Amino acid sequence: MKLNNPINRVLIAGGTHGNEFTGVYLIKLFEQFPELIRRSTFETITLLANNQAFLAGRRYIDKDLNRGFSRADLEDVTLSSYEDLRAKEIDYLFGENGKTPVDFILDLHSTTANMGVTIIIDNDELFNLQLAAYLSYVNPEIKVYSSGNSGRGQNALRSLSKFGVAIEVGSVPQGVLNANFFLNTKAIIYAILDYLALYNQEHLPSFPKNLLLYEYMEAIDYPRNEQGQINAMIHPQLQFKDYEALNLGDPLFLTFDEQTISYTANSTTYPVFINEAAYYEKGIAMCLTQKRQITI
Amino acid sequence: MKLNNPINRVLIAGGTHGNEFTGVYLIKLFEQFPELIRRSTFETITLLANNQAFLAGRRYIDKDLNRGFSRADLEDVTLSSYEDLRAKEIDYLFGENGKTPVDFILDLHSTTANMGVTIIIDNDELFNLQLAAYLSYVNPEIKVYSSGNSGRGQNALRSLSKFGVAIEVGSVPQGVLNANFFLNTKAIIYAILDYLALYNQEHLPSFPKNLLLYEYMEAIDYPRNEQGQINAMIHPQLQFKDYEALNLGDPLFLTFDEQTISYTANSTTYPVFINEAAYYEKGIAMCLTQKRQITI
Repeated sequence: MKLNNPINRVLIAGGTHGNEFTGVYLIKLFEQFPELIRRSTFETITLLANNQAFLAGRRYIDKDLNRGFSRADLEDVTLSSYEDLRAKEIDYLFGENGKTPVDFILDLHSTTANMGVTIIIDNDELFNLQLAAYLSYVNPEIKVYSSGNSGRGQNALRSLSKFGVAIEVGSVPQGVLNANFFLNTKAIIYAILDYLALYNQEHLPSFPKNLLLYEYMEAIDYPRNEQGQINAMIHPQLQFKDYEALNLGDPLFLTFDEQTISYTANSTTYPVFINEAAYYEKGIAMCLTQKRQITI
Repeated sequence: MKLNNPINRVLIAGGTHGNEFTGVYLIKLFEQFPELIRRSTFETITLLANNQAFLAGRRYIDKDLNRGFSRADLEDVTLSSYEDLRAKEIDYLFGENGKTPVDFILDLHSTTANMGVTIIIDNDELFNLQLAAYLSYVNPEIKVYSSGNSGRGQNALRSLSKFGVAIEVGSVPQGVLNANFFLNTKAIIYAILDYLALYNQEHLPSFPKNLLLYEYMEAIDYPRNEQGQINAMIHPQLQFKDYEALNLGDPLFLTFDEQTISYTANSTTYPVFINEAAYYEKGIAMCLTQKRQITI
């Protein structure tokens, strides 16, 4: 790798969703002990992205902050909800044309889905792919989810910088701290910071250049009645089976009167975000992915 | 048992906490198919107790509805928040001096703690104890938690009737439906309704008259800093260990800088509601219980 773009400033964001406590309390810890995230070749900045939502014990006050960073929305002066203003403020601080632009954003999330420790990348930037490959190499438990096809790369907080990833851990209920996921997330943050430091020094360790990706294909919704209310739930046999193969005929949903609804497509898929609490209102029961081994 | 008090009217309440979906969707199911809960010797009524909170995706709008049923609060005309008014309305409908008083209340809850399927009783009414013994007999997985010492029997929705229990299932995240817990809760509701029907007909089946109770002793809070913010989390070794013995020296909390805080009392206790999301704001990290075998 040639050092075209040194990393000068790194932003670690937590609490972009106020009820995802892992990130919130890691940011609070780093604010208390900044030496934990200090590295010699770049500046590390922390951001408790939606503190108002955290104080209210909610994902957001008015709307999902982590969908508010499209360039169009940031430039739309008519958007003025709490999260609209907060997104504009964060862009003003850390965006490409902001006060102190950052080169790398690490955003900390948790999910009620059983996604273990997932690294989310939003684009095909070689830098992000290589980092993901490195992290999978040092921790084989890590899964890498590529959200590029979902458009998340366009409107998430982390889209403010070209380079960056999200860490998504679960299953963790909203409003709950799970110590193991807290410790796992912290360890990955350190691994990423160390990687960035070595990158700046052109001393990256050697690691295999292959990467197993779960690529977003489509989101599917719960079955709903005429009033738009769900009338089925994730089938017990699918619950907690994130990243496992789902094939034609496998159970998908169980209606409230106990009828099984099966998967009807002919191709194998690997669902993620199965039964994520925050996605009921978005009309998403799970996201289907395809599994792809790539060489970088 | 002698039939002093026939059960004429049964209330099944769900969504007393709006983000505990198991109860909400069971109530919706029963409203769609009332024959499911119809029994010949009594009337069964359903109540979606806090629909506004459900629609908002929150536990409550202004305050916890399930703490608002003390006689003093119900009679305090100065209390007029959304939940205060809703509590008075529910009391007016179903309370002892209400429009259609109910003899038995079954309130459906879920928790982020790993409490499996728990029956909560709030008092020592023989009727409730016998029902709990019956349910433990037909389903040995069931745990019975006696909340009497906590005062919950004084201000919970179910305190409106002398007889009644809560069903508490988990671990389930807030805002999530878990199909297995949905089915388990439904099965227990049917078992209770069948029991009440047999009771009215003086045809109760015979079952062992012993009962294993986990009795509330005290609630303990998270360690907190001077600003009142938590600075530790449930220790990984205690997480999900509801109903298991906790002894002197066992790990209780892990501080954010990874110091273990141990249990310092000399007597064995059995914690429940470990890491319940809704209890962070109440200053409760877990409730300690004592295990007691009683003969009814």
